[in-house]
Amino acid sequence: MASILVLNGPNLDKLGVRDPSIYGTGSLQDVEALCEKTAKEVGAHVVCRQSNAEGTLIDWIHEARGKYDAIVINAGAFSHTSIALLDALTLTQLPIIEVHISNIHAREEFRRHSYISHAAKAVLCGCGIDGYAYAIRTAAKLLNGG
Amino acid sequence: MASILVLNGPNLDKLGVRDPSIYGTGSLQDVEALCEKTAKEVGAHVVCRQSNAEGTLIDWIHEARGKYDAIVINAGAFSHTSIALLDALTLTQLPIIEVHISNIHAREEFRRHSYISHAAKAVLCGCGIDGYAYAIRTAAKLLNGG
Amino acid sequence: MASILVLNGPNLDKLGVRDPSIYGTGSLQDVEALCEKTAKEVGAHVVCRQSNAEGTLIDWIHEARGKYDAIVINAGAFSHTSIALLDALTLTQLPIIEVHISNIHAREEFRRHSYISHAAKAVLCGCGIDGYAYAIRTAAKLLNGG
Amino acid sequence: MASILVLNGPNLDKLGVRDPSIYGTGSLQDVEALCEKTAKEVGAHVVCRQSNAEGTLIDWIHEARGKYDAIVINAGAFSHTSIALLDALTLTQLPIIEVHISNIHAREEFRRHSYISHAAKAVLCGCGIDGYAYAIRTAAKLLNGG
Amino acid sequence: MASILVLNGPNLDKLGVRDPSIYGTGSLQDVEALCEKTAKEVGAHVVCRQSNAEGTLIDWIHEARGKYDAIVINAGAFSHTSIALLDALTLTQLPIIEVHISNIHAREEFRRHSYISHAAKAVLCGCGIDGYAYAIRTAAKLLNGG
Amino acid sequence: MASILVLNGPNLDKLGVRDPSIYGTGSLQDVEALCEKTAKEVGAHVVCRQSNAEGTLIDWIHEARGKYDAIVINAGAFSHTSIALLDALTLTQLPIIEVHISNIHAREEFRRHSYISHAAKAVLCGCGIDGYAYAIRTAAKLLNGG
Amino acid sequence: MASILVLNGPNLDKLGVRDPSIYGTGSLQDVEALCEKTAKEVGAHVVCRQSNAEGTLIDWIHEARGKYDAIVINAGAFSHTSIALLDALTLTQLPIIEVHISNIHAREEFRRHSYISHAAKAVLCGCGIDGYAYAIRTAAKLLNGG
Amino acid sequence: MASILVLNGPNLDKLGVRDPSIYGTGSLQDVEALCEKTAKEVGAHVVCRQSNAEGTLIDWIHEARGKYDAIVINAGAFSHTSIALLDALTLTQLPIIEVHISNIHAREEFRRHSYISHAAKAVLCGCGIDGYAYAIRTAAKLLNGG
Amino acid sequence: MASILVLNGPNLDKLGVRDPSIYGTGSLQDVEALCEKTAKEVGAHVVCRQSNAEGTLIDWIHEARGKYDAIVINAGAFSHTSIALLDALTLTQLPIIEVHISNIHAREEFRRHSYISHAAKAVLCGCGIDGYAYAIRTAAKLLNGG
Amino acid sequence: MASILVLNGPNLDKLGVRDPSIYGTGSLQDVEALCEKTAKEVGAHVVCRQSNAEGTLIDWIHEARGKYDAIVINAGAFSHTSIALLDALTLTQLPIIEVHISNIHAREEFRRHSYISHAAKAVLCGCGIDGYAYAIRTAAKLLNGG
Amino acid sequence: MASILVLNGPNLDKLGVRDPSIYGTGSLQDVEALCEKTAKEVGAHVVCRQSNAEGTLIDWIHEARGKYDAIVINAGAFSHTSIALLDALTLTQLPIIEVHISNIHAREEFRRHSYISHAAKAVLCGCGIDGYAYAIRTAAKLLNGG
Amino acid sequence: MASILVLNGPNLDKLGVRDPSIYGTGSLQDVEALCEKTAKEVGAHVVCRQSNAEGTLIDWIHEARGKYDAIVINAGAFSHTSIALLDALTLTQLPIIEVHISNIHAREEFRRHSYISHAAKAVLCGCGIDGYAYAIRTAAKLLNGG
Repeated sequence: MASILVLNGPNLDKLGVRDPSIYGTGSLQDVEALCEKTAKEVGAHVVCRQSNAEGTLIDWIHEARGKYDAIVINAGAFSHTSIALLDALTLTQLPIIEVHISNIHAREEFRRHSYISHAAKAVLCGCGIDGYAYAIRTAAKLLNGG
Repeated sequence: MASILVLNGPNLDKLGVRDPSIYGTGSLQDVEALCEKTAKEVGAHVVCRQSNAEGTLIDWIHEARGKYDAIVINAGAFSHTSIALLDALTLTQLPIIEVHISNIHAREEFRRHSYISHAAKAVLCGCGIDGYAYAIRTAAKLLNGG
Repeated sequence: MASILVLNGPNLDKLGVRDPSIYGTGSLQDVEALCEKTAKEVGAHVVCRQSNAEGTLIDWIHEARGKYDAIVINAGAFSHTSIALLDALTLTQLPIIEVHISNIHAREEFRRHSYISHAAKAVLCGCGIDGYAYAIRTAAKLLNGG
Repeated sequence: MASILVLNGPNLDKLGVRDPSIYGTGSLQDVEALCEKTAKEVGAHVVCRQSNAEGTLIDWIHEARGKYDAIVINAGAFSHTSIALLDALTLTQLPIIEVHISNIHAREEFRRHSYISHAAKAVLCGCGIDGYAYAIRTAAKLLNGG
Repeated sequence: MASILVLNGPNLDKLGVRDPSIYGTGSLQDVEALCEKTAKEVGAHVVCRQSNAEGTLIDWIHEARGKYDAIVINAGAFSHTSIALLDALTLTQLPIIEVHISNIHAREEFRRHSYISHAAKAVLCGCGIDGYAYAIRTAAKLLNGG
Repeated sequence: MASILVLNGPNLDKLGVRDPSIYGTGSLQDVEALCEKTAKEVGAHVVCRQSNAEGTLIDWIHEARGKYDAIVINAGAFSHTSIALLDALTLTQLPIIEVHISNIHAREEFRRHSYISHAAKAVLCGCGIDGYAYAIRTAAKLLNGG
Repeated sequence: MASILVLNGPNLDKLGVRDPSIYGTGSLQDVEALCEKTAKEVGAHVVCRQSNAEGTLIDWIHEARGKYDAIVINAGAFSHTSIALLDALTLTQLPIIEVHISNIHAREEFRRHSYISHAAKAVLCGCGIDGYAYAIRTAAKLLNGG
Repeated sequence: MASILVLNGPNLDKLGVRDPSIYGTGSLQDVEALCEKTAKEVGAHVVCRQSNAEGTLIDWIHEARGKYDAIVINAGAFSHTSIALLDALTLTQLPIIEVHISNIHAREEFRRHSYISHAAKAVLCGCGIDGYAYAIRTAAKLLNGG
Repeated sequence: MASILVLNGPNLDKLGVRDPSIYGTGSLQDVEALCEKTAKEVGAHVVCRQSNAEGTLIDWIHEARGKYDAIVINAGAFSHTSIALLDALTLTQLPIIEVHISNIHAREEFRRHSYISHAAKAVLCGCGIDGYAYAIRTAAKLLNGG
Repeated sequence: MASILVLNGPNLDKLGVRDPSIYGTGSLQDVEALCEKTAKEVGAHVVCRQSNAEGTLIDWIHEARGKYDAIVINAGAFSHTSIALLDALTLTQLPIIEVHISNIHAREEFRRHSYISHAAKAVLCGCGIDGYAYAIRTAAKLLNGG
Repeated sequence: MASILVLNGPNLDKLGVRDPSIYGTGSLQDVEALCEKTAKEVGAHVVCRQSNAEGTLIDWIHEARGKYDAIVINAGAFSHTSIALLDALTLTQLPIIEVHISNIHAREEFRRHSYISHAAKAVLCGCGIDGYAYAIRTAAKLLNGG
Repeated sequence: MASILVLNGPNLDKLGVRDPSIYGTGSLQDVEALCEKTAKEVGAHVVCRQSNAEGTLIDWIHEARGKYDAIVINAGAFSHTSIALLDALTLTQLPIIEVHISNIHAREEFRRHSYISHAAKAVLCGCGIDGYAYAIRTAAKLLNGG
């Protein structure tokens, strides 16, 4: 049974509170519930974690190697600034799926480049929290040979 | 019943032929069949069209207003160069979902910016042809009030 | 009697429909009627054509040589991206007058440069559809020796 | 009766003297006479002033508020360098029409950006001194409700 | 008794009139009264002057040497464009405190760099007219040995 | 009684030790004492916290919502690199006042842009530790209706 | 017998008419006759086509796969702007030889980059119409094993 | 007898006072005396003027046409920012010699480009006040046929 | 006896696991053993620490002042993004030696600039783990008067 | 009988040794033999020289004036860096034909600009050593009146 | 026995004379003696050469192939400007170790990029002349299988 | 008696031959005669040398230390590309005067920056060969205490 790590980065603990016109009204709990429901549908297992600390996210990614089969990550604003997260993801050699709740490409210039994308198989932006479900389906499919 | 226009731009008629290590082995016919199947599942109707000509795509987008409820578009390389397509999409005032089969953010620098993204609600990259299915689901959900 | 070709590029067939707060409520028919009326006033003859296809516009510009005495052109979004149109206009060796309905210099960064301007005698932006009338007057005056 | 302030900036007092192949042979007096004639035709009143001093132009723009209904301005080379003029024009809350005698977009790179354009309703370049007449007509039309 | 020159540059004579949502409703008179009041509180003397002319501001700055002990300056839009003002301020060898009523760093890109800042001890942005009071206090403190 | 959170970011625990020619000799304790004294003067309450960890600062900012009425922040070097802090500050919807002890605009190029400034009402640079006092006064005034 | 597709893009139908000081006096017919003559000399077969429409060129390139052994292309101004043509050429997996009649590297800045060059084996600029003959020879040699 | 206008721009009235390690200890009076002495040696006549106001400098340059045979100018910091001065100098059609007392190319990046240089025959930087003498000799020689 | 702090930043705990073709097969334990062995050879004492958290690294650097005589640091990906680490290192006033296991200058563009280098005496890239030994020798020599 | 100087720059003495997948297996001797053979065919005379020293190449180019009728040059890596070679070529006033064995436009960014191209009539890239033959034919044709 | 070529580029013959605060007091003779001593320690043989001429350095590098097993090079200022040296080094297919006596990354912007680094296995900056010893050790280790 | 080395770089041996509209008709012999004549007038001794080879110029500059009191240099195109020459000039610690015969600031963009200027006391451009005379006078004056 495929095992997928779902990581949420800075400020995603405040989902639903943060500007709902951009991020919708779903909370982090809603995201995690959706991930679990979708995982069940595709016969996979998910573990969901969130942190505002780059170092903690790196630690979790390091532990993922050998323990999970894929990583779904919404690194929030760290996507635009953290080469260290890119390196951590790359060294797992796991398939990475990147999610953003809003369409980052229609926002400020500095949100249009993501270091995470260099390591990602797929990038889903602007699907709201459904992006996580599509990400898990994409991961599951990749693990089943594409 | 929601009606969705699925547009494919230049070179997508050659899907399956074009570098399969990047674009997979699915053909345009496979894409269109998947779109129809997904549409049926979400209770929507799709019409699929492909052209290598920017002007033809603009004409079709103009006709979409009043005839369709949403547009799913993979504008291929025109995504990076055509402001005219962006303008055409914007004036329909319809929700736009952008799809790319490969993860354009992990390729050449000149593929990392898409004018279409300025008008899009959501952008799905690198999910292979499944990106179209997720795009149709996203469109359907938007049309059902999000 | 001076003969002037009036060319409208992509999305201008949707004038009046497209964001009226920027482009006003006049339609392409209104533009063409104004051009004819103005031409009559300055003792000139106009032919008006519109296309969403770059190749078609180039074909028409090629035919203009020897058939018309000046070209008034609103190349829409192609202004910002088409070097091929610039080349076509240049090789006619006719006086070129460029029109934009909105003030493109007060909009997005990517609308501030026009390749057409390299070949144009005059550029009129933001006068609404009256810009076409001023363009025809400018062309007529140039043809009458300035 | 609409009242329009026509401002000319640096070096425009030398019109007719300055490179006639670019600027034509009309003098500043010719420009002002044309403005008055055009104003009469559209039932408006104009006052014309010229200065080579940025501070003087700002003072005149400040006085325009409450005294004039629109400003037609050819700020010459200050167009490319003066944010202070942009600020002065903006705070009048009057409609601004920008004129350039030559087509600044076909000249040196540093003449292609105008701060004045950020505040302008319309921009007319390269129509020679007729640009002033079109500017006054555009201003009059705007004041009459477009 | 310390003597401080307070200089206001272009458009600041229109304070209270200019976009109150950005600049507040205080007038230049209010600014000058606040400066005098604050100066009295810190045992200093202020002279307040405003001009829209760069040359005049330079002249006043030149006269400041030997006559004043510090300069508080809001150079308005000249901050972004005038190297000559920077040079004038530098050659006084007096402490310079820069004030902006609005937070220029949250506005257009071209307002984010100030030449004055190269010569300033302190920069206060976005405190409204209170910024002048803080500037005078900062100057007074510097003159009293920090 | 207004309640203000005062946050100090990386390396500010070493104030007084770090290059005194730039940062002065005041310690973090001095800063915090000044904040408390100033708060008392304006009838407000302050809580002061410092961390070298971005994640910890984000956590504290999240907790600020509903608990404090304003945030005064010197994010140190994170100002120039942390979009995550900007996002955290923005989602509090509290007024933000940014402080820098030195004039960052007269130092290295990479210190001249602050992401924090995008969210800040006011920015105070180079006033030494007095900047904190002015920041608290500015916050208090904003909370009292400006 | 090797079969080579010779494609000419926008404005090349006007060869001989277009600025002869840059492009020479040879017409498109002369180019095509030269191509046929050269092909005969190297024992190859050529088919020559010209279009001003990007979409038509892409269609022809798609059809080339399996029908021709190499493509010689002068994409004119599309060279500088069309990523879609680059993609079409790449997916044929045929050897591509790029020709420009003038030396594009000694002209305007925007003519110095060609997307076609990314896919080309060889690029010949400024040899006049003889460039086509050299291109056919180069293609023939490549097909004969270099 | 050749007649030469010597213009000094902003802050040059403070020569000798301004940072002597960069500008030397000579005053503006010394500069003007040296100009007169040198002019006498080469059989020319000079008139020397200085202003801190860009508009005044432009007025003087306008008057130079027909009255002087050449202009020697040290436009100070206006060199780097004033296109209006460049235009004024250009329209005189007189030979222009540019002087800077310090070597501007070994100072801040923003002092390395001079608009005046576009119109100048010769540029002398870093020769101290002797640069004026060399400039007058250069002008005289040019007027005597080189 | 000289005391040297050896700091390793993010992802260096995974040395040997991370892409061995770039980083070699040595582990962090190997690095630390080599540091100790080298230190012994040069008569110094080392303490080795590793963290994936920027804040933790800053804390350790702060503590280094007064406790160690030099710092050898491989800040990993933080080298390219952390101004806060640069500031922390600078305020220790200790000699800093920077190490990178791979040659960062032959990799992606975004790895070619290191903020750490601004504060470093020496930078060693691409010597594999031997770089640490050379760094300790360099530090020891500097401490012995160079 | 036309006389052509064929110059090869740095590293071309190592042709055949240097990365054969890019440069082919032909040696410099092969190149020179091909040049002589081609020259004979077009009734011209060639002299071939190679140097790794920029100064030597400049000396040879200086001597070419009056001695040769055209120059064919492959300046190797000096093409991208040597303005001095450009100047030397320009002052000969001879027709210059530039050759590169590989397609420099499909390689690293820093190989895409050639100073030599500013002075060249034609540029041939990626034709392997045949490029020299085409260059000699092009030169011969130019010398025979095009 | 491994044989290593040690190359020093422009101005390194003046080591010890050139700014000792940056480059130390060691002479080129000291460098060469250190290289020989280190080589002996690691059982290798070195030949040391220095030239101020790029062409001479290229010639020596060409001769290195087949004669030496590795190259240690301090190309001085040529590191920043010579693509020809990069090409010469690359075609030897030998391991290259780059040395700089000072930390070039803490100096002027134009010293921060080295073309040599593209071909180098390792880069040592700022270790003073000891950098050569470390470079030879690194080369020896690489030749012994890493 | 002061001794001055006058160095001329690439292509200056062709003075008088090279584009006389830019460089005048004086030859290198004329330049050297003028230098000698001027030196005599100011009581100095000059030695004049020219080379097209960067390495040779560096060698001569190295020898200048201790043998000459100042260097006058026209490095031609090497001015724009040679950091090695800048380093050689700097390490002489002699006063450097830079000369260019034409006004390089009114030519191509790539001629506007000179590395030599970083080390020069004075820069004289566009005075024709008289620039050398002024340079020698400037050098002599500097050597006599300014």
